[in-house]
Amino acid sequence: MSKYWSELTRRLVPYVPGEQPKIEGLIKLNTNENPYPPSPKVITAIDVFDKKRLRLYPDPNSDQLKSALASYYGMTHQQLFVGNGSDEVLALIFQAFFKQPLPILFPDISYSFYPVYCNLFDIDFVQMPLNDDFEIDLSVYSARNGGVIFPNPNAPTGRVLGLAELQELLVRNIESVVVVDEAYIDFGGESAISLVNEFPNLLVVQTFSKSRSLAGARVGFAIGSAELIEGLERVKNSFNSYPLDMLAVTAAVAAIEDESYFESSRQQIIATREWLDGELKALGFSVLPSAANFVFASHNGHDAAALFAALREHKILVRYFSQPRIDQYLRITIGTQEEIEVLVAALRDIIC
Amino acid sequence: MSKYWSELTRRLVPYVPGEQPKIEGLIKLNTNENPYPPSPKVITAIDVFDKKRLRLYPDPNSDQLKSALASYYGMTHQQLFVGNGSDEVLALIFQAFFKQPLPILFPDISYSFYPVYCNLFDIDFVQMPLNDDFEIDLSVYSARNGGVIFPNPNAPTGRVLGLAELQELLVRNIESVVVVDEAYIDFGGESAISLVNEFPNLLVVQTFSKSRSLAGARVGFAIGSAELIEGLERVKNSFNSYPLDMLAVTAAVAAIEDESYFESSRQQIIATREWLDGELKALGFSVLPSAANFVFASHNGHDAAALFAALREHKILVRYFSQPRIDQYLRITIGTQEEIEVLVAALRDIIC
Repeated sequence: MSKYWSELTRRLVPYVPGEQPKIEGLIKLNTNENPYPPSPKVITAIDVFDKKRLRLYPDPNSDQLKSALASYYGMTHQQLFVGNGSDEVLALIFQAFFKQPLPILFPDISYSFYPVYCNLFDIDFVQMPLNDDFEIDLSVYSARNGGVIFPNPNAPTGRVLGLAELQELLVRNIESVVVVDEAYIDFGGESAISLVNEFPNLLVVQTFSKSRSLAGARVGFAIGSAELIEGLERVKNSFNSYPLDMLAVTAAVAAIEDESYFESSRQQIIATREWLDGELKALGFSVLPSAANFVFASHNGHDAAALFAALREHKILVRYFSQPRIDQYLRITIGTQEEIEVLVAALRDIIC
Repeated sequence: MSKYWSELTRRLVPYVPGEQPKIEGLIKLNTNENPYPPSPKVITAIDVFDKKRLRLYPDPNSDQLKSALASYYGMTHQQLFVGNGSDEVLALIFQAFFKQPLPILFPDISYSFYPVYCNLFDIDFVQMPLNDDFEIDLSVYSARNGGVIFPNPNAPTGRVLGLAELQELLVRNIESVVVVDEAYIDFGGESAISLVNEFPNLLVVQTFSKSRSLAGARVGFAIGSAELIEGLERVKNSFNSYPLDMLAVTAAVAAIEDESYFESSRQQIIATREWLDGELKALGFSVLPSAANFVFASHNGHDAAALFAALREHKILVRYFSQPRIDQYLRITIGTQEEIEVLVAALRDIIC
């Protein structure tokens, strides 16, 4: 603590991201990165970009990227917002819509950045318990609120909700903003983007970090009604005019334009996930049904923290949360088929 | 206005950056960009960077860049903070240190983002008038305050303060944080970084956008006491874990490492500025002494808004602020020698 810190700074408990260790030969299955590189067209686009132009400011509105996304999703420019990773997009959303007299609602087991944003922006919140099957039960989100946010599929569970349930929530909750955080939607869920034209209170957030293999480029976006996007732009333009650099925009545009690469890499990940699901069950794990690029699994004969440590000995890094209700689970990112085969062999070694 | 906007969002008046028009053949002297491209070593560094690595998250601490800066400025790692352009660094500073019961102080004519941050974070402020020569007079910054911030050199005036005056302010104001915003320091001022080890309340902010020709890459940084940097990291890690993408870090590191390119491009800009200063005076302009990569000039025979419009007809874009005290001034970014010769010829055309 320092006397120079604001009261706000003193009370912050920052988010702790998954480790980014620099260990040679490590199989890294801890931060839900895509095991496949970005599309070759992304690499070419960066290579041919005229780097002398970096002396100029980027377009503050990132129009080129908004146009590519608008055309991909069949939306208008006014329904699109882009930012420095979906984390920045979410932070700006909390300021723009969730700073309300009533508390916002989100699941008790969910993306652990949500309570951190609330703390930063002084927003009240109520955490709604997942049901016994670790599903988000939207029927309990009935209290008057300052907003609702949840990931779909949820993290770290991987469980996904269908659009019918979302639609019911949107109707019931038409007075406040509902944010669906779809970081993992491309691995098996149905996007709520199709509901945006119908619901002025819906905002859908996605990222290029997972299904587009661009975690290193920091690009996220939101799609919603023009009035929500306009509010978000106001906050963004009071914070940082140019959050997206020229190379990040170049990479993201090329990624959106290569549909066949996107399709084949996500199908490969889904296939590996299904294979891993079977293998884990054969080893005696309980595995939650996943629509994401990770699985969430526990073993009733083996302590999760001990399994985490044993895997690390094998130079395999997964994610462990020492947190009530989920402290007997491991979250395992889907790697390449080869990496996941090494993981299964290691688990077999440890368990059998 | 939308019913979904927070109270905060409703009252925001966002910052308006200088235009980034897409006009063929335009001479762009309106946003203080560097007329020279980034170092060839920056371009090579981006070219050889293995783009397949973009699938991974970047280092959340940008250690590689912090190390390069620490070694360049003779500081420790704990004295360095990096962010998505100095605008983001400043925004986080306002949250970390300026959210105080007492108002913060900054000049009445200065970077117009400061009052925008205050509005966004609900911070009281008092604007201190420049003196009649458009200088910041630090001797009047004597009231108890929640912090002090000013650009040095100041924008849009270009006038610079020496370290002795800063030092006096730092001693007098030891109870609150003093931020020196040195976006333009490399064009003629003396950096306050040399005072950081002496003053725990000093934070110096710089950017790669101007003297390093990397406006398009979005990299800024702050140097200060370890306790200030730690506070800033807390806020950053409650907002966005990974604000700097891999390519931005790669570019910035290479820029810092090419001292001779940096030295020759800034000397060229200084030489062109001195030439322009003489030419403008010969045309009857009053020109403030500038230590930045722009000049601030007025002509008592010609209205500034009319000159701005006439230059635009000549496809030359400068910056005009319709704001009390400075509405008879033009801010002209130093372009290449050739661009500035075209500007001078156009002004001669318009005026004579």
